[in-house]
Amino acid sequence: MSAKVGVIMGSKSDWETMKLACDVLDELNIPYEKKVVSAHRTPDLMFEYAETAVSRGLKVIIAGAGGAAHLPGMVAAKTILPVIGVPVKSSTLNGLDSLLSIVQMPGGIPVATVAIGSAGGTNAGLLAAQILGAFDPEVQARTQARRDRVQQQVLESSDTL
Amino acid sequence: MSAKVGVIMGSKSDWETMKLACDVLDELNIPYEKKVVSAHRTPDLMFEYAETAVSRGLKVIIAGAGGAAHLPGMVAAKTILPVIGVPVKSSTLNGLDSLLSIVQMPGGIPVATVAIGSAGGTNAGLLAAQILGAFDPEVQARTQARRDRVQQQVLESSDTL
Amino acid sequence: MSAKVGVIMGSKSDWETMKLACDVLDELNIPYEKKVVSAHRTPDLMFEYAETAVSRGLKVIIAGAGGAAHLPGMVAAKTILPVIGVPVKSSTLNGLDSLLSIVQMPGGIPVATVAIGSAGGTNAGLLAAQILGAFDPEVQARTQARRDRVQQQVLESSDTL
Amino acid sequence: MSAKVGVIMGSKSDWETMKLACDVLDELNIPYEKKVVSAHRTPDLMFEYAETAVSRGLKVIIAGAGGAAHLPGMVAAKTILPVIGVPVKSSTLNGLDSLLSIVQMPGGIPVATVAIGSAGGTNAGLLAAQILGAFDPEVQARTQARRDRVQQQVLESSDTL
Amino acid sequence: MSAKVGVIMGSKSDWETMKLACDVLDELNIPYEKKVVSAHRTPDLMFEYAETAVSRGLKVIIAGAGGAAHLPGMVAAKTILPVIGVPVKSSTLNGLDSLLSIVQMPGGIPVATVAIGSAGGTNAGLLAAQILGAFDPEVQARTQARRDRVQQQVLESSDTL
Amino acid sequence: MSAKVGVIMGSKSDWETMKLACDVLDELNIPYEKKVVSAHRTPDLMFEYAETAVSRGLKVIIAGAGGAAHLPGMVAAKTILPVIGVPVKSSTLNGLDSLLSIVQMPGGIPVATVAIGSAGGTNAGLLAAQILGAFDPEVQARTQARRDRVQQQVLESSDTL
Amino acid sequence: MSAKVGVIMGSKSDWETMKLACDVLDELNIPYEKKVVSAHRTPDLMFEYAETAVSRGLKVIIAGAGGAAHLPGMVAAKTILPVIGVPVKSSTLNGLDSLLSIVQMPGGIPVATVAIGSAGGTNAGLLAAQILGAFDPEVQARTQARRDRVQQQVLESSDTL
Amino acid sequence: MSAKVGVIMGSKSDWETMKLACDVLDELNIPYEKKVVSAHRTPDLMFEYAETAVSRGLKVIIAGAGGAAHLPGMVAAKTILPVIGVPVKSSTLNGLDSLLSIVQMPGGIPVATVAIGSAGGTNAGLLAAQILGAFDPEVQARTQARRDRVQQQVLESSDTL
Repeated sequence: MSAKVGVIMGSKSDWETMKLACDVLDELNIPYEKKVVSAHRTPDLMFEYAETAVSRGLKVIIAGAGGAAHLPGMVAAKTILPVIGVPVKSSTLNGLDSLLSIVQMPGGIPVATVAIGSAGGTNAGLLAAQILGAFDPEVQARTQARRDRVQQQVLESSDTL
Repeated sequence: MSAKVGVIMGSKSDWETMKLACDVLDELNIPYEKKVVSAHRTPDLMFEYAETAVSRGLKVIIAGAGGAAHLPGMVAAKTILPVIGVPVKSSTLNGLDSLLSIVQMPGGIPVATVAIGSAGGTNAGLLAAQILGAFDPEVQARTQARRDRVQQQVLESSDTL
Repeated sequence: MSAKVGVIMGSKSDWETMKLACDVLDELNIPYEKKVVSAHRTPDLMFEYAETAVSRGLKVIIAGAGGAAHLPGMVAAKTILPVIGVPVKSSTLNGLDSLLSIVQMPGGIPVATVAIGSAGGTNAGLLAAQILGAFDPEVQARTQARRDRVQQQVLESSDTL
Repeated sequence: MSAKVGVIMGSKSDWETMKLACDVLDELNIPYEKKVVSAHRTPDLMFEYAETAVSRGLKVIIAGAGGAAHLPGMVAAKTILPVIGVPVKSSTLNGLDSLLSIVQMPGGIPVATVAIGSAGGTNAGLLAAQILGAFDPEVQARTQARRDRVQQQVLESSDTL
Repeated sequence: MSAKVGVIMGSKSDWETMKLACDVLDELNIPYEKKVVSAHRTPDLMFEYAETAVSRGLKVIIAGAGGAAHLPGMVAAKTILPVIGVPVKSSTLNGLDSLLSIVQMPGGIPVATVAIGSAGGTNAGLLAAQILGAFDPEVQARTQARRDRVQQQVLESSDTL
Repeated sequence: MSAKVGVIMGSKSDWETMKLACDVLDELNIPYEKKVVSAHRTPDLMFEYAETAVSRGLKVIIAGAGGAAHLPGMVAAKTILPVIGVPVKSSTLNGLDSLLSIVQMPGGIPVATVAIGSAGGTNAGLLAAQILGAFDPEVQARTQARRDRVQQQVLESSDTL
Repeated sequence: MSAKVGVIMGSKSDWETMKLACDVLDELNIPYEKKVVSAHRTPDLMFEYAETAVSRGLKVIIAGAGGAAHLPGMVAAKTILPVIGVPVKSSTLNGLDSLLSIVQMPGGIPVATVAIGSAGGTNAGLLAAQILGAFDPEVQARTQARRDRVQQQVLESSDTL
Repeated sequence: MSAKVGVIMGSKSDWETMKLACDVLDELNIPYEKKVVSAHRTPDLMFEYAETAVSRGLKVIIAGAGGAAHLPGMVAAKTILPVIGVPVKSSTLNGLDSLLSIVQMPGGIPVATVAIGSAGGTNAGLLAAQILGAFDPEVQARTQARRDRVQQQVLESSDTL
């Protein structure tokens, strides 16, 4: 089945975070593609990726980057698809720079920003699933089932305090 | 036509920001509903709102709040629909508290966070439109057309420097 | 003796911090209960916990959480008991996000917020004891005695510089 | 009736914020006293105030201050009563300095910190009422009734969007 | 004479800040061009502008933007010319977001970042002049002369305290 | 010779930082005393220490503390001697809380604040020496000689790059 | 009588803040001189000012500056006198940049930093007085008398709440 | 060949960061000199270095420093050459203090600021190369070739996810 979600990242070093998004998509059986696309080092590839996203059948793009993180916002500027931005934790400012660079987009071009770091990686996958699930009852059911499993784990964890 | 988007806010004072989301939805002819729902002052209403969102036909929820802004995250915890969070500018910390309270969700429950304040209000409406548009070519076309108009305005603005 | 203090936390990973509150309560011989209750992953349990707190005889609730920490504020919204919030140190922003998410509550629903991390864990237990002690001379005396011991340790520590 | 709550502030300029706490106490019919007590400019008065608080019958102290706000923590160091700290909004750093100076107390001496500025003023009054109410059903009932009224106002505010 | 410096900005609202750069260039008789080029709303124009900058004879580009300010970094990614970034003061976070979005570029693509707001506007013009002046004694002399005049003003200002 | 400088700290854990101040005083042959004095855990000792400082012959007090660091400001409130505050690096907020708690004193009671952590420890010792040296040529000469030695070390360090 | 305190500032616009230091010195009858000395625009004057400070009889230098505030630290690098730094409130970052630029000096060259803005202006004057007063009983007595007056005002202000 | 670029740093401990700038200059075959020059500990050397930079044939100066980082701005105040500032990551505030101390220069004296830490070290070297390259086609070609190699590496890195 062709990819519904595109997972891109500004550098291979972002993979540790972005793999968590892919793990969720794998778990929920949602087809996706993954790629290193750097706003600053491969700008033309980035534009081409964004421009062809609709025609290639993608419904959602997940883009992760750190520091002056321009990838999510620039991809959002070049596609009409919803773009989820993952602020990767940066070495100096703990990802506060990544967060502000992604979330503070000007009126006109939104980026759906999630949490800094690993929580954001996981939640980017889930948010993509919830967007797809709003229009696909089977995906929605699988996503809900995952939630129910996590809830059960939390309920059981009290016994181990 | 029944509402596809639910626009809620923690306080009537958030309306100035959230109206911008509604303006976009009006402009793009997307049916929506709007309501004051406070996580802290009307918690039961909030849960009921979130629990019934799918069955009432909503596809996306936009939730705005300021300060210790719990509304977007709590609604997200109670519905499988994608929730867009708008950090309303707060009187003391300029919305940095609102932003962190909304975006830093733990792995498991994402909130699609947009910019603080008015840019976020507008972009919440656009992001909802882009999500709907990924599965509805007419909405996507209208959203793209709005982008084209904005682009044209930017191009023309150079002449007036 | 039935629990006077409820100690809850958003995740088992918060236990390292919250155990310090329980240690104080143990030391001061104050009966308490402890539980993992997640605002986002077990929202219904959270509401039920808060709603039944008064009738179960609790006088104070201590709630710890990290990141977009909604547990203390949401429990406070659902009970008339005083709620003490402990901002757990988060992996990305060092607990500044936890702190702002807990302390910046809107007018109407207070959370008694203590310090980020381990100092906050200890102080949450002490604050609960001081609240109980204001109405129970024996608890107050034991709490004062603990202070006196700590003071003595500080006085003696100068000799070891 | 003798005062149950002491409301103190570091400077007369904090009155605008602290008056909100007094308004709540008035509204809930809780006897209180109010005073300007500066940690830095009247340190001996501060110590005397704190030392005599228990014997004068106070159950809770509310202390507001801005900037390097030492009043709440120092009063807490000198009394075994629960102390609520209100970070007054400062002219340069918007009260972030006030907040950190109040909330980041070392293990041993807690301060129950509320929000910066006016929300904190109101919530300090409510938190004092909730503490008293945990041991006085009538105060608790009046505090709950106030909540119910606020809830009703929120529910009605939707109609005016 | 053909433009040596290109002054671009993400929005017409940035003109108030960017005009200060142009004022310096005017004062130092350095030919420049100015244009509104938005990274997010006119991304193709931005790429075209950057790609043709060398061939059009530009030596330095000054780019100003606010919020999630991607213009300077993206232009830098598409040209080998030195790019000066001006963080425009933003309405919510006072330009801290603009600053971090511009300065925290990953290794490989530098942006020469100046101060937030009006000081940055003026200094962007001066920095461009100093870069040109390092290879053009006349420009350098005029820039030095401007410095000398400012120095004289400072020296004289003491008399008016 | 009786102590000219009093070095105090809020906790024995601050010794690592405060020892650096003592090292400088030893090196410059300035008599000093050192002591653990906690604003929150030994408030009466703190007041007594400050009140007797002048009569005991101290000329300068160096006070170090972390988190909600009240020691320097409270000692300053109780003595007319100049007080140097050292913000000890805190475990959660890296000493930003310590810095703001010490430096943001209200008009009326100054604290001479130095850098966070080890640089501040060393500089507190040097600042005390410079204050004493302004009225004691021998101390001033020894302090200047130390500077000259450090300068020489810097000059030589270039050769080892 | 020749000046004991030198009051300098980076720009005439800092006068509003620095005048408060001069007001205190006037009130306490301490001779001083005042001057605009810019680290960046009149660097040679700054060095000359600092180099001659001891020989001209100054005992303390007060230096105020905003933004990337280098004046206090650079003067401190060029004189063995104690230097008090006043972080002037900046237009973009509220003086947080000024504060960090002044207080975070490396080990070797201390600056006695006071609060941002007007409180810092007043306290710089008082700190200079306290330094002089440690070696001059008359100055110390006048400074103490001013404190006593302020204390009296605080005590009386309670009656006007 | 005589040095075109001067690389200076405030302390030998900055070398780890500044070496990255030198590595780039080596790689691009650009002659440079390197030196430890401390604004605070060797101020006269700093002034002499800056004053003679033009006559010694330098075209660009790269200056790195941490904390209250005054070196870049003070060198910029004493030379008409473009100065690139590298905020070295500081031990307490992660380089945020370094960044603000370098970038927030007042109107009149610009510093071309790059990212905090290692990315800034590399980019300082590249920015110097791009400035030289704007007037030297061979340097520009070598700089462009380096970019192309980096781009190629990014393109190939996708295959290894």
